[in-house]
Amino acid sequence: MRAVVVKAGSVVVRERPDPVPGTGELLVGVRAAGVNAADLLQRAGLYPAPPGSPADIPGLELAGAVRAIGPGVERFVVGDRVMAVVGGGAQAELAVVHERTALPVPDALDLVEAGGFPEAFTVAHDALFTQCGLRPGERVLVNGAAGGVGIAGVQLALVAGATVVASVRAAHLREALEAFGAMAVDPADAAARGPYDVILEPIGAPNLKTNLDSLAIGGRLAIIGIGAGARGELDLLQLMSRRARIHGSTLRARPFEDKAGAARLVERQVLPLVAAHRVRVPVEEVFALDDVEAAYARFAAGGKLGKIVLDIAG
Amino acid sequence: MRAVVVKAGSVVVRERPDPVPGTGELLVGVRAAGVNAADLLQRAGLYPAPPGSPADIPGLELAGAVRAIGPGVERFVVGDRVMAVVGGGAQAELAVVHERTALPVPDALDLVEAGGFPEAFTVAHDALFTQCGLRPGERVLVNGAAGGVGIAGVQLALVAGATVVASVRAAHLREALEAFGAMAVDPADAAARGPYDVILEPIGAPNLKTNLDSLAIGGRLAIIGIGAGARGELDLLQLMSRRARIHGSTLRARPFEDKAGAARLVERQVLPLVAAHRVRVPVEEVFALDDVEAAYARFAAGGKLGKIVLDIAG
Repeated sequence: MRAVVVKAGSVVVRERPDPVPGTGELLVGVRAAGVNAADLLQRAGLYPAPPGSPADIPGLELAGAVRAIGPGVERFVVGDRVMAVVGGGAQAELAVVHERTALPVPDALDLVEAGGFPEAFTVAHDALFTQCGLRPGERVLVNGAAGGVGIAGVQLALVAGATVVASVRAAHLREALEAFGAMAVDPADAAARGPYDVILEPIGAPNLKTNLDSLAIGGRLAIIGIGAGARGELDLLQLMSRRARIHGSTLRARPFEDKAGAARLVERQVLPLVAAHRVRVPVEEVFALDDVEAAYARFAAGGKLGKIVLDIAG
Repeated sequence: MRAVVVKAGSVVVRERPDPVPGTGELLVGVRAAGVNAADLLQRAGLYPAPPGSPADIPGLELAGAVRAIGPGVERFVVGDRVMAVVGGGAQAELAVVHERTALPVPDALDLVEAGGFPEAFTVAHDALFTQCGLRPGERVLVNGAAGGVGIAGVQLALVAGATVVASVRAAHLREALEAFGAMAVDPADAAARGPYDVILEPIGAPNLKTNLDSLAIGGRLAIIGIGAGARGELDLLQLMSRRARIHGSTLRARPFEDKAGAARLVERQVLPLVAAHRVRVPVEEVFALDDVEAAYARFAAGGKLGKIVLDIAG
């Protein structure tokens, strides 16, 4: 198979042996794979793949068709359209996925959109509901709202009955976020629209003080990314007087059972919303496999609405 | 009535008008009132009483006998032994307590012990169970373990089936903590005994880095005091990779319904343990009302096992 391979700080396309599905695993003919911040970190040598994932093939999410199944597979048959979060190895023509971490692709999504769905929606769903326990009527701030996780968070919070403020630096993206039903603001104006019961933070430490300043009593702050920095000052008195909490999480490092559990929640609670066209997967730009460096560069440039996706069989 | 009164940075005993119980309220003849860090902060002018509490009479917890009842009281009658967390005003001969924040005093406690029970056990129970969701088999670190909240936390975690490491600076107190069933250590040795699923932190920012370093995957850190400092550096990448969370809380500032809810949980989940002699209230020293300055000085000196209590009618 052809695969994206990390090599001395860049990404190239190379031949690699076809993977073989083990017990409970699907061999997926990958049609599309989303680009994520983790891929760029892995390219820079800063974020090695977890054990059990291909060490040098990046890619955290994919969509495609089941090409073969290993022993004991019960949920899918050859030909089924599936999508999944994986620990790595998504950016290749073939990938192995355990069936309990795979999701069926609803008819409402084409496979390119589906390639940009699993990571963003699983992270956003996990942060908003599993960690922060979002309830209808609450006020939510989504920072970095035009990114993949941001748009997923905006849509999921809105459909759950929350009021959503979406902060994004690029002014030209605000209209699109307003079209989803959020109030879109410059990051500098986010605090004035608070206080917030839940804040989704994919950017990192530079936002920590503003986030804490604008948390409501009983507020929850979910840290899901630190691309702009990891270390910041925490005022514990402020945290106490707000009776607030701060969650940190990553999906990639979790054990199999946690990933499978998160996938089941998305299957039961998000896929019906996709099928009903109540949430969708905006794709900013699609790149062919051979243009993977350009895809990463586009991701890094920012100012995009939604996902950058590699169209691997396109 | 006679009451402790904050006056120009010191505490003195003065005559004050007797309070009058309103609807749903008890007039309590206070026998004993615990001393807490909040009292010393209030004496220093740093922690004003919340609205609805006496502005200049300190004291967050009390025990005594019901002297009179206001209209609509259903849970208690004159003569009942009660104890309660209050927003202030506990260190006086009389205090008004809403019946839904009051707890019956089990026969297993005398009223002096009961005066040191409510704040410590409510804070520890709320942090360990309501916030951190402690489960049997988990490892707990209790810092400042010889203090009132610390000893309450050690006992409640042990009875809940957790393994408890109790850190305390004063070496002469470690034997007593071991007698409760904890492993007692110097604070410098606490990290080496981890990682911990739950950490109870009553001291503040100086412990923040060590606490984060010794949290387990999925660990929860509960900040319940900041006497030694409020500001510290937080590494969000560490929080993410541990998939950990940090809670801040105070009891005093909560609305009535939250305080009543916390009191009900303590009544149902802790008082049976007191009645069965499975947890107890160690009292380091008892001071007469007129010796309130000495009581505060003893509290501030540290190196004590359990509570400092004012014996008001003694």
